Amino acid sequence: GKPPDATDNANYFCEYAFLYHQMDMLEDAHRTGAYFNAITWNPASFKDKVVLDVGAGTCILSIFAAKAGAKEVFAVEATDMAIRGRKIVEAQGMGHIIKVLQGTVETVTLPSKVDVIISEWMGYLLLRESMLDSVLIARDRFLKPGGALFPSHATLYLAPVGAAKACREKQQSFDGERQHWEDFNGTMRKWYGTDFACMRDEFLEEQRKYYLQTGMFVNLSPKQLVGDGSPLLRLDLLTATLEDLKGADKPCTCSMRISKDTQIEGFVGYFDVDFSGSKENPAKEEVQLTTAPTTETATHWGQQLFGFYPPLQARSGDTLKGTIWIKRQKKNHRLLHLEASFELGQSGQVRDKREDSWFVD
Amino acid sequence: GKPPDATDNANYFCEYAFLYHQMDMLEDAHRTGAYFNAITWNPASFKDKVVLDVGAGTCILSIFAAKAGAKEVFAVEATDMAIRGRKIVEAQGMGHIIKVLQGTVETVTLPSKVDVIISEWMGYLLLRESMLDSVLIARDRFLKPGGALFPSHATLYLAPVGAAKACREKQQSFDGERQHWEDFNGTMRKWYGTDFACMRDEFLEEQRKYYLQTGMFVNLSPKQLVGDGSPLLRLDLLTATLEDLKGADKPCTCSMRISKDTQIEGFVGYFDVDFSGSKENPAKEEVQLTTAPTTETATHWGQQLFGFYPPLQARSGDTLKGTIWIKRQKKNHRLLHLEASFELGQSGQVRDKREDSWFVD
Ligand SMILES: Nc1ncnc2c1ncn2[C@@H]1O[C@H](CSCC[C@H](N)C(=O)O)[C@@H](O)[C@H]1O
Ligand SMILES: Nc1ncnc2c1ncn2[C@@H]1O[C@H](CSCC[C@H](N)C(=O)O)[C@@H](O)[C@H]1O
Repeated sequence: GKPPDATDNANYFCEYAFLYHQMDMLEDAHRTGAYFNAITWNPASFKDKVVLDVGAGTCILSIFAAKAGAKEVFAVEATDMAIRGRKIVEAQGMGHIIKVLQGTVETVTLPSKVDVIISEWMGYLLLRESMLDSVLIARDRFLKPGGALFPSHATLYLAPVGAAKACREKQQSFDGERQHWEDFNGTMRKWYGTDFACMRDEFLEEQRKYYLQTGMFVNLSPKQLVGDGSPLLRLDLLTATLEDLKGADKPCTCSMRISKDTQIEGFVGYFDVDFSGSKENPAKEEVQLTTAPTTETATHWGQQLFGFYPPLQARSGDTLKGTIWIKRQKKNHRLLHLEASFELGQSGQVRDKREDSWFVD
Repeated sequence: GKPPDATDNANYFCEYAFLYHQMDMLEDAHRTGAYFNAITWNPASFKDKVVLDVGAGTCILSIFAAKAGAKEVFAVEATDMAIRGRKIVEAQGMGHIIKVLQGTVETVTLPSKVDVIISEWMGYLLLRESMLDSVLIARDRFLKPGGALFPSHATLYLAPVGAAKACREKQQSFDGERQHWEDFNGTMRKWYGTDFACMRDEFLEEQRKYYLQTGMFVNLSPKQLVGDGSPLLRLDLLTATLEDLKGADKPCTCSMRISKDTQIEGFVGYFDVDFSGSKENPAKEEVQLTTAPTTETATHWGQQLFGFYPPLQARSGDTLKGTIWIKRQKKNHRLLHLEASFELGQSGQVRDKREDSWFVD
């Protein structure tokens, strides 16, 4: 059965009420540094402006906006972290600028519209958590015409992965479950005279979903890729609609160019966000936050890895074309489900085809 | 805020819908073997009887009851596991005896009252999950006068623990968080000009709860105890009331005798259940299932370990007296909260006293 949205929400918000979780995010220097730069390097975009911080948490972004010269900041946070955010704001002596409002941005009332919306809403594979919904709703409720969103754009990329130890380990664990099943069924028959054979296929199906069809958190280095990342989805936050996010009407597509003769054991998803402001209020210093594979310290998002079982056999110059429906899971609309088909080949010749689906849990 | 009970339920039932989780329980040979023995060694208690299986899962207990000669078994299961249970029942050729009903036992309707209720409802520290509530409700709704419950009795014990590596590791992790905080606050000040000092105490409080005030899953061997287990709570399932379980009116007490000069680094909770039937329908062969520390393979419940920080200093012949309120957590009524006070000493002399509280999450 489908749990009510209230359940998804209660579970979702629960974690954000803990300081250790907010600190995990704050300690991600790529993340927090990118927001710090995007806001404080662009005082022209914030000076004397009214700002809304969607999902303020500890109010760190509101504090950056105040440092950049904002006249008034509404820091909206659903969880009890709002109470702590208020204390942190007071401790910076910014209580006269930043107004902390506890509640969801969908239901809160503000005394005025705002010039700028700041928010850190990104989840694994960009869209997990579905918090961007809340930002778009806030935009439609509160952003003045010509106002700007920070970040302003987001792009989700896919890139092909060569040898992937994580995928091979999952395959081994899954293979181990076949033997586990035989042992289990043997025990049940011998000790309790009960035959579970009719459950074998359902059990293996369950284990396949768990081991082979669930995205894995990884931090890859660029040399594990066998081709450049290719954009799957580009969002202009000023114009994107909730329907775009629910993506039910059309799939996303991307073409990944393969750079050598290789096995392709899987693909990763990662994202960039850009802080460009709006046409009327452009950022003078454009900042980008990327979660792409790197040799430096990774962000706390890492990348999401999805395996091909068995791997694809690719040749240099091949193109791996993906057609992907990014859906929300029925049992929890904050989690994702990818339905994908891939074609591998070159010069109009398709040498391998795959249809599969993966969960981002 | 307090999530609605619907949320606790949705989360609670979610896991039981997976075969791997049902298999984990089935593969616990102490557990499943005890139920098998209690039921099939006592055909007199089941022959031609009408039986209710509360929370049937894969219907394994219903199958045992049918093997023991039951005339009719109602297997009530809330999750979609009911659909699989029905298939498993059919595969044993028992579809004419076992009727699988999907729903909660609180809301299901049965065509008749029953002679025996069988159920495996025990959680960590006996009461976690609060599923015993459902068994008592089923008893009051469906059990005939003179009917029997399998199991019929449950006892929760506490026992004193000497050297406990797990406690020391938690203390170390907690101590590490002090340094973590200094590093965090230093970074926030230096890079972002933001001072989080006002959150230090709340952070350490949060970490204390997590590391020091949360029960740990352990499998102890008897030689790690420094005194015998002492009963904290005894329940006769035929007469226990929901009020007894909610335990809000009076605390439980127990006295643990210390057998040597030693540090006491913590205490464990574990339980027994007895399958004795009722006065009118007694089990001829009494079976007991225990989760006490053992040198043999442990049950999947293990024991729950709670630490004293710092440890107590005990002498041989001391008594450790505990007065303990077993409460339900406000944020999730299926989880527990212990509020405890302990006194250590002998001959009427109290040498150490502690008041503390622990969560069973
Ligand atoms: N619809 C909504 N209304 C209000 N707060 C929300 C929300 N959806 C998510 N949030 C909050 O948004 C926060 C996202 S995490 C980001 C926290 C902070 N802005 C920072 O950058 O460090 C969480 O604290 C979460 O509780
Ligand atoms: N109130 C309720 N009504 C119906 N089923 C319930 C219930 N509370 C818990 N359950 C179910 O009870 C089961 C407990 S686990 C025990 C399963 C099985 N009897 C066995 O011994 O192997 C779970 O499958 C859970 O979904």
